[in-house]
Amino acid sequence: MDVKVNIERMRNDLEELGRLGRDEHGGVSRPSFSPADFEARNWLRGKIERAGLCYRQDGAGNQFGRIDCPGRTVMAGSHIDTVPNGGMFDGAAGVVAALECLRRILEEKVPTARPLEVASFTDEEGNLVGDFLGSRAFMGMLDENEIRKGRTSFGLPFEDILRRTEFTADGILGAHKDRPELEAFLELHIEQGPVLEDEGLSVGIVERIAGKHYRQCSFVGQASHAGTTPFELRHDAFLGLADFALKATQHVATKHYGSMLTVGRAVLHPGSFSIIPGRADFTLEFRSSSEETLRVLEKEIFAIAEDVASTRGLGFASRVVDRTTPVVVPSRIVKIIEEECESLHTPWMKLTSGAGHDAQILAGACDVGMIFVPSPDGISHSPAERIVWEDLEKGANLLLRTLVRLAT
Amino acid sequence: MDVKVNIERMRNDLEELGRLGRDEHGGVSRPSFSPADFEARNWLRGKIERAGLCYRQDGAGNQFGRIDCPGRTVMAGSHIDTVPNGGMFDGAAGVVAALECLRRILEEKVPTARPLEVASFTDEEGNLVGDFLGSRAFMGMLDENEIRKGRTSFGLPFEDILRRTEFTADGILGAHKDRPELEAFLELHIEQGPVLEDEGLSVGIVERIAGKHYRQCSFVGQASHAGTTPFELRHDAFLGLADFALKATQHVATKHYGSMLTVGRAVLHPGSFSIIPGRADFTLEFRSSSEETLRVLEKEIFAIAEDVASTRGLGFASRVVDRTTPVVVPSRIVKIIEEECESLHTPWMKLTSGAGHDAQILAGACDVGMIFVPSPDGISHSPAERIVWEDLEKGANLLLRTLVRLAT
Repeated sequence: MDVKVNIERMRNDLEELGRLGRDEHGGVSRPSFSPADFEARNWLRGKIERAGLCYRQDGAGNQFGRIDCPGRTVMAGSHIDTVPNGGMFDGAAGVVAALECLRRILEEKVPTARPLEVASFTDEEGNLVGDFLGSRAFMGMLDENEIRKGRTSFGLPFEDILRRTEFTADGILGAHKDRPELEAFLELHIEQGPVLEDEGLSVGIVERIAGKHYRQCSFVGQASHAGTTPFELRHDAFLGLADFALKATQHVATKHYGSMLTVGRAVLHPGSFSIIPGRADFTLEFRSSSEETLRVLEKEIFAIAEDVASTRGLGFASRVVDRTTPVVVPSRIVKIIEEECESLHTPWMKLTSGAGHDAQILAGACDVGMIFVPSPDGISHSPAERIVWEDLEKGANLLLRTLVRLAT
Repeated sequence: MDVKVNIERMRNDLEELGRLGRDEHGGVSRPSFSPADFEARNWLRGKIERAGLCYRQDGAGNQFGRIDCPGRTVMAGSHIDTVPNGGMFDGAAGVVAALECLRRILEEKVPTARPLEVASFTDEEGNLVGDFLGSRAFMGMLDENEIRKGRTSFGLPFEDILRRTEFTADGILGAHKDRPELEAFLELHIEQGPVLEDEGLSVGIVERIAGKHYRQCSFVGQASHAGTTPFELRHDAFLGLADFALKATQHVATKHYGSMLTVGRAVLHPGSFSIIPGRADFTLEFRSSSEETLRVLEKEIFAIAEDVASTRGLGFASRVVDRTTPVVVPSRIVKIIEEECESLHTPWMKLTSGAGHDAQILAGACDVGMIFVPSPDGISHSPAERIVWEDLEKGANLLLRTLVRLAT
């Protein structure tokens, strides 16, 4: 098969799409269900329809373009929403690559024996109520209470957001009913890390996708006057957090290298120059590509927190905000992608995805595979996110050949 | 001299005043220039006038009640503003005690040879533009730029606050012109710490008032994806802050016992579950009762910060927000108060004030002295702030005798 993607058309698509939601800091701010996201959805619908694909949108706003025939569907895609002030390739590269693959299959009348679909999933970035709203809806994995009563990351009730759109809680919860039987799901994505660039490679084949735990945690002590409370009488919740963060990071870095732990947000109460913090609320996330390690990490990290709390006379509390399960990419998919790399004379490496992806959610229904292309300087979720067009071309050609293999 | 204060009248005054600005959490929220503060100012004016004292208010809103005669003034007082959701004794106890002393001197026609004044200073708590606005205005120690262009702790330009009041920047800056020649300033205050209660004493004589530095600081690293950035490539600004806070606290606690260091507020940027903090902004305050120690602390603490920054590949920046100088209470004042404790058969101890007080500012113009009464459980700046009336009575009688001594 000599069919190749048209990288000029892909570049043009990505540049068009990257102008929708362009913000004053030079980034792309296009969270799902924002006005910019609706512009982008219209843009994508137009592209799918003009390509001659059969367009549909489900109740959760997931968008699809299909080459129909009987049998189980081979799907490829990603997402077009972004974090606030994000970049123009995270997600978008995978949707445009999948769209281009299906366009080329139609244009060249490549014979296939299974239906093919490009998919763009709603709110992969989790700006609404948790990551992966769209792919979770597609899989019937949503928490009904979260959809009906949840609050978005920027504080508004989700139902207030929905009221301004064509979507409803019932529609989102009902999206699972419309999904096709799946043979496989493939996702091309920027790496969002430095490994491929360091290795001088244009593509990576993902072997595992890390799972993660998101927890909202607090150390609770006693607020008191910073000028009059001697150190030995303090119950400083912030120092508890500081102690915990250093010890837990050290523990993960030395005992579970390759796993991750991050404190990304902290709020001290009451939050004044001269008052010892009586409470420190913070986010804790930890990730691992092994389910067993995640279980062990959870136990060990909370033992560290309890130990810090009891040493410092503090309380510790935490609740789960979100969690995903690590995914092992089936070896048959890894093998097919490797073989297609060889046919294309494209050198590759296998790697683990530390970031979560819709493919991880789809893994509950079918075999999944992921192709990474390098992120220059490892930067993503930033206006400085870039892509090398030659890398994207190689990755998209690999996606195209893998799709055709799976659909034949 | 057998004149004694009327503790029932003082209690009644404090309970009346404590109802002004009472908030839904059971605390008192009466920041200067708030509607509740204006109610309290009217209340105080009424009390001063009904006592037969000569009332005046200066351009900074400081309120005074005077028993006039020729000579240098002996002044006593404190403040009636509170922190948000504070208690009903911090400041108020000192104003009511001074008022009661002057009332008793008038009522009993105690012969005095110097003018006496009760004073209530604006915004001791620093809710507007820095602590001690009123006493600093009285002393001519304000930063003109801060008064004309400053922003309040709750974000509004100070001039917007002023516009809703009878006060002006020119009036505040001009307050210094109206102040009397001072012989001495005495301030009764709750301890805001646990020492007197622990020692079972009703009064403490302050020997020193700690000075403090307020700084707004930042560690600056590199925001990146929490799932894809290996530990060895991270520049996590929060871990820099955590490391610094623990090391600096440890350093002060072990090398400069009695001095204080506190991180009271921290904001991480961008502040998301899955993004490594690229910047950690935080408040740093440190205090000492020795000017020399403050100087050494400043040097040592910033050496620790620079060391943490360079070890972790971060930047460190800080700017001074406020600073006060430690005060040594003149031995003649300490001696007079000690002698009056003896006459009253009231056991006492000498102690250092870790908290700042208007007396510290007035020390630039005259001899100052402070009398502490116990704070049950060391609690202040809280709805749980309390006082033992018998302690207040002993403290106020001591204030009364000391004032008469100084005015004779």
